[in-house]
Amino acid sequence: MRWWGWGDPAHPPTLPGHALGFLSEAVGVTDLRPPVALGRVRLAPTTLTENTLSELRAIVGADGVSTEHSQRVIHAAGKGYPDLVRLRAGEPEGAPDAVVLAAGHDQVRAVLELCARASLAVVPFGGGTSVVGGVAPLRGEHSGVVALDMGRMAEVLELDRESLTVTVQAGARAPALERYLAAKGLTLGHFPQSFEYVSLGGCAATRSAGQASSGYGRFERMILGLRLAAPAGDIDLPAVPASAAGPGLRQLLVGSEGTLGVISELALRVREAPRERVYEGFFFEDFAAGVEALRRLAQEHALPEVARLSDEQETRMSLALAGSGGVKGRLGRAYLGLRGFRERGCLAILGFEGAAGELSGRRERALGLVRASGGLAVGRSPGEAWAKGRFSAPYLRDELLTLGVMVETLETATQWSNVRRLHAGVGRAISEALQACGTPGRVMCHVSHLYETGASLYFTFLAARRAEDEIGQWRTVKEAASRAISTGGGTITHHHAVGRDHAPWMAAEVGSTGLAALGALKAELDPAGIMNPGKLLPGA
Amino acid sequence: MRWWGWGDPAHPPTLPGHALGFLSEAVGVTDLRPPVALGRVRLAPTTLTENTLSELRAIVGADGVSTEHSQRVIHAAGKGYPDLVRLRAGEPEGAPDAVVLAAGHDQVRAVLELCARASLAVVPFGGGTSVVGGVAPLRGEHSGVVALDMGRMAEVLELDRESLTVTVQAGARAPALERYLAAKGLTLGHFPQSFEYVSLGGCAATRSAGQASSGYGRFERMILGLRLAAPAGDIDLPAVPASAAGPGLRQLLVGSEGTLGVISELALRVREAPRERVYEGFFFEDFAAGVEALRRLAQEHALPEVARLSDEQETRMSLALAGSGGVKGRLGRAYLGLRGFRERGCLAILGFEGAAGELSGRRERALGLVRASGGLAVGRSPGEAWAKGRFSAPYLRDELLTLGVMVETLETATQWSNVRRLHAGVGRAISEALQACGTPGRVMCHVSHLYETGASLYFTFLAARRAEDEIGQWRTVKEAASRAISTGGGTITHHHAVGRDHAPWMAAEVGSTGLAALGALKAELDPAGIMNPGKLLPGA
Repeated sequence: MRWWGWGDPAHPPTLPGHALGFLSEAVGVTDLRPPVALGRVRLAPTTLTENTLSELRAIVGADGVSTEHSQRVIHAAGKGYPDLVRLRAGEPEGAPDAVVLAAGHDQVRAVLELCARASLAVVPFGGGTSVVGGVAPLRGEHSGVVALDMGRMAEVLELDRESLTVTVQAGARAPALERYLAAKGLTLGHFPQSFEYVSLGGCAATRSAGQASSGYGRFERMILGLRLAAPAGDIDLPAVPASAAGPGLRQLLVGSEGTLGVISELALRVREAPRERVYEGFFFEDFAAGVEALRRLAQEHALPEVARLSDEQETRMSLALAGSGGVKGRLGRAYLGLRGFRERGCLAILGFEGAAGELSGRRERALGLVRASGGLAVGRSPGEAWAKGRFSAPYLRDELLTLGVMVETLETATQWSNVRRLHAGVGRAISEALQACGTPGRVMCHVSHLYETGASLYFTFLAARRAEDEIGQWRTVKEAASRAISTGGGTITHHHAVGRDHAPWMAAEVGSTGLAALGALKAELDPAGIMNPGKLLPGA
Repeated sequence: MRWWGWGDPAHPPTLPGHALGFLSEAVGVTDLRPPVALGRVRLAPTTLTENTLSELRAIVGADGVSTEHSQRVIHAAGKGYPDLVRLRAGEPEGAPDAVVLAAGHDQVRAVLELCARASLAVVPFGGGTSVVGGVAPLRGEHSGVVALDMGRMAEVLELDRESLTVTVQAGARAPALERYLAAKGLTLGHFPQSFEYVSLGGCAATRSAGQASSGYGRFERMILGLRLAAPAGDIDLPAVPASAAGPGLRQLLVGSEGTLGVISELALRVREAPRERVYEGFFFEDFAAGVEALRRLAQEHALPEVARLSDEQETRMSLALAGSGGVKGRLGRAYLGLRGFRERGCLAILGFEGAAGELSGRRERALGLVRASGGLAVGRSPGEAWAKGRFSAPYLRDELLTLGVMVETLETATQWSNVRRLHAGVGRAISEALQACGTPGRVMCHVSHLYETGASLYFTFLAARRAEDEIGQWRTVKEAASRAISTGGGTITHHHAVGRDHAPWMAAEVGSTGLAALGALKAELDPAGIMNPGKLLPGA
């Protein structure tokens, strides 16, 4: 992966040429801002003594410990906007003093025990795709910090075909597991935008939700058992379909973001791989009509695997980026003359996956509800275009950053009765904050991840970068959006996790007694406070 | 409710006359053992001082505190087999020193604070239907114990029709909420066997699962938000459809069994009430064939709302109890001459609920899978008979106890690949333990509560009561069954909760570090250790 951005360095550009004009008009395109060369990234020297490094090597082998500049840079940050701005400028906030590759639960345990003795902070590092500062190399009160890279813990340990469960080491990447499962006619069904790089342990630690979560469920719903190496000991919770044996420890460790220990193994529910896929587009008169249709799909148990609805702004942006092909061409043919519709119309993508016989009845029922809600089918090409580009947004972001454009996303979830109000409130907060920064921009949103009682809202905003103060600009907008979410009845995060960026909002989310309970748990499992300091808990 | 058993004292007998012969033959029917008169139940005098009682009355009002003999007896135990044996003999293990009725969250908070100061244990008491000692009036290290009856906290606080969520006080009973919802065309869909008396807060605190959980989900899945009054403070988690904001505090408080605090309010997901219901019976050649069919239903997403499969023993017992009507008559007509089938055949009940249009397609698909697995439809009468008697087992138990029969149930859940092995192992353990007690009996089981990856196993056993040592006899069998479950890959409880009876098995369930984590949590939220001592955590 590019150290300063996303994906294979050889990945071709994704921004279509014709979009430049649109961008210039929308937010302005300033000077080109390419990343600096890797060698110019400035890092402080490692603080680890040769003695500590030897002890680490004794646990994981000589080739399992690195203090090389390139490795430290790669593990210096996640993939949030501020991370990339800093990395591209060659000025990360810091870097781990060493990168350690453990090759199994026991090595993880030994590394944690050594780090507790040596007062070294430990940042578990899976795919490194956090966009909320979850892998920032913070040392807290400790003398140093190591990134515990999970890359060597990528094995499939067991497949139980009859129960449809698979047990994996937590460092396994989502695409590798999908390849393993596909060969057996199975799928996990977890496809977050970060799919290409994400580790399964990271998905568990952050309560990830994939693009097909309306059908396959959030990642937490796939977890039946897990193993945690905490500094104070192991917690080994075997796979059971359900249990009434007390408080939900599985769901307590899920979402712990590396602050309680390292999730080393996971038992996950898998499914038969779908034989058929139909991804298609629908147009609604306006956002409210589309939300109403999605709500009906969710509450009448007619949800497709993928369901998302772009608001007016995101719909217009999609059409502009798509240019003369794809959505626009099709829409042009279908809706010529429907002016009002085109101005306020909102595009929804529904993706059905399943066995041939099973899918058709389900799809028919869903399409009946969509039609009854005023939705107009616009064919498969928008759906297929979306599916083709479903993992490409992070590539696009890199290109926008090079063009001097600020681009960021944030998300929440709320009850259906609050979706439109929260959509308006957060959108307004972001717009006003951008305006106040002197960089008016574009704010857009989609509804996705549908539940019977509510849905998530996923905002994207673009603006010209405020030169020399990109981080301040970002902070202003992030703060305004977070306040609007937190006071507006939304959760501070639906699937990006808390990390560092949302930690200040946890008190509002769970209250002071809730925080105290989490603090007590942390003190018990991680008495030396070495696990991922500065994340999840405010002031930790 | 009868203080010595279940239900309205005026409830008519449920044991059909013709079943007596079968029972005599199966386990022996000894001398009649009716319960003693209420006035003969022996209780120690209350230990509460007049001063403490006055302080309690100052919080909840004079009529909110009772030390009356009858009230203390009613709150002296739950409805487990040992509870009933002791109560019927007039010798409960103990009783609360007072029964306190709080009328809202703030009164609960004030009671907890007073009890913490006065060193009084608090046993939250909803419907009082625990079958695992969850409401036993244990005082631990404290000078006294009060039962905190939730009966005055039964209001519906808010209905969000658009989001399909309802907010209730935790003392609300399930039937009352269903009546409220039914008037609005809605349902919660939670129907445990204890439905007639159970409180919703109790369902949350114990991770209850209803008979229709395969369709409506376990109770924990219905909980979107909750409010907890802990001695150390309140935790107020609003209703959100999903969140990635750290460890799952909602699921941590669910299942806390009154040991962390009192769940005072709940935000629950509701659904449109079904317009149509089809409950029907199917016969499988043997248990393995039936399990295979249920697994396919679950894994191919064709589950009805209710799905249960009796093993050979339970099927035979059902047929015997049904007598010449119901299942047997129908079966007699349909399967005359199918001898082999009748000897090993297993009866399954599938119950479909939904909107008329939606239900038929779903049912058709499910029935196709059942047929493909060798299942034979035996019509609606077995399904309707089951539905009619779905809440009657506790009444039957009372009558069996009067007949000198020991009857008890216990349950677990495991992965599909382990269902048959665990079924055999636990059944054998119970049988052998009964044999060792000199009271060979009948052990039967059904599979219910289906999940994609596994299912629950629900065992019932009958035997002659060992005179003068009923509790020792019960303990021997319970211990053997629990060991077989715990070492056989099952969870110690799927929906009965931990209470006192399963607490010794929690170390095996979550490990010593898991227990330490729960202990740290309890110490933080309940520093004086007043909340439901002796439950959930071993040695607490």
